[in-house]
Amino acid sequence: MATAETPLSFPVLPLSTESTGNRCSRSPEPMSIDPFATVSGTREEILAATYRALCDHGYADLTLSVIGDELEKSQSLIYHHYDGKDELVLSCLEYMLDYLESTLDETVDDPRETLEQTIERVCTPVDSDPEQSVRRVFIELRAQAAHDAAYREHFTRSDRVFRDWLQSVIEAGIDSGTFVDCESGRVAEVLCVTLQGIFFRRTTVTTTAWLPETSDELVATLEHTLYAPESA
Amino acid sequence: MATAETPLSFPVLPLSTESTGNRCSRSPEPMSIDPFATVSGTREEILAATYRALCDHGYADLTLSVIGDELEKSQSLIYHHYDGKDELVLSCLEYMLDYLESTLDETVDDPRETLEQTIERVCTPVDSDPEQSVRRVFIELRAQAAHDAAYREHFTRSDRVFRDWLQSVIEAGIDSGTFVDCESGRVAEVLCVTLQGIFFRRTTVTTTAWLPETSDELVATLEHTLYAPESA
Repeated sequence: MATAETPLSFPVLPLSTESTGNRCSRSPEPMSIDPFATVSGTREEILAATYRALCDHGYADLTLSVIGDELEKSQSLIYHHYDGKDELVLSCLEYMLDYLESTLDETVDDPRETLEQTIERVCTPVDSDPEQSVRRVFIELRAQAAHDAAYREHFTRSDRVFRDWLQSVIEAGIDSGTFVDCESGRVAEVLCVTLQGIFFRRTTVTTTAWLPETSDELVATLEHTLYAPESA
Repeated sequence: MATAETPLSFPVLPLSTESTGNRCSRSPEPMSIDPFATVSGTREEILAATYRALCDHGYADLTLSVIGDELEKSQSLIYHHYDGKDELVLSCLEYMLDYLESTLDETVDDPRETLEQTIERVCTPVDSDPEQSVRRVFIELRAQAAHDAAYREHFTRSDRVFRDWLQSVIEAGIDSGTFVDCESGRVAEVLCVTLQGIFFRRTTVTTTAWLPETSDELVATLEHTLYAPESA
């Protein structure tokens, strides 16, 4: 099955605010953050096929042959460029993370709205099939990281990108007087692990009933600890 | 390899405070919370062997034959009682969770200390090999839950036990005036997912440098939002 559509999303990682309603859509719009929306060159086509194959089959059942089936070109190209499944998956993850880093807003117009949109995005209980597939794959890859140093290296970098971005949003809020002065790095770290915990749990339990109140309580905590009283 | 020793621990889940320093020890002490410390009967022996085999080999490489090697009795007993690996693993998880529930303190003498000890336990970056094995196995089983409804059912119950226990600690603190009046269920939910996020991340990245400051910031947040000013 070869298709040009890619379920786009970086679980937990932030996306530019324009694309909030657009995650995991199979028909990316112009403002899409799909890293494979405009693939050019053999390498990108192979990585896009790897991502589609991962989402469709999961990591455990992934083989070079399955990836080849997703590729619109000769399978032999894969063997020419890559030695094995993990080299491909890791290249795919790095490519997506590079793309995400390149799209992160350097200016944050509304730090408070940006944080709350990020929380809402992680906590929204409406799940589409493609989004659920992506979530499951990322939990599988994290489990792989528990055993495999190369995956651990990737997720260490991935977590740092997310945490650093959260810190930059918090610092923008401190600079503008929207947030109180605080240890931005530590606040970002706790928010980062909390959002990861939500992602981790929602993918591995049967109910989403706890998500809305968790989201509300998280925002209430920010109101208590981070938002400047005069900005309320 | 058959051994009576069991690396004891319930990742993330709380243990009675007496056993704080005793998690994952391979030589359980009298106050141990090892559910397999005093196995009696064939069923318990099989479940203890399953847990040892899981910790030693991981879920992916687990087979009935590997579990049989851990059993000090005839392997045929396993086939007599259980149909497959997942039935065994799920029985093992349920048995451990039942045991944990039965040991949870109903009275909380010092709610504040109990919460902080729980945070410290999840955030302490000193890792022993047995503890790391247990963490990896639980991430693997969570990844399995992402694909398998029976595991999702188990972890749904497991999370509820942890969350409800946190809520009971928070309510004890409200009753005694140590904590401010708050929506205990929501506060417990956020603390629960935050601790799960820490567990999830620490098992899948290369560094533990972020753990102490995350622990400090989490306690600082409780000071701001939960601790009664007069109790400080």
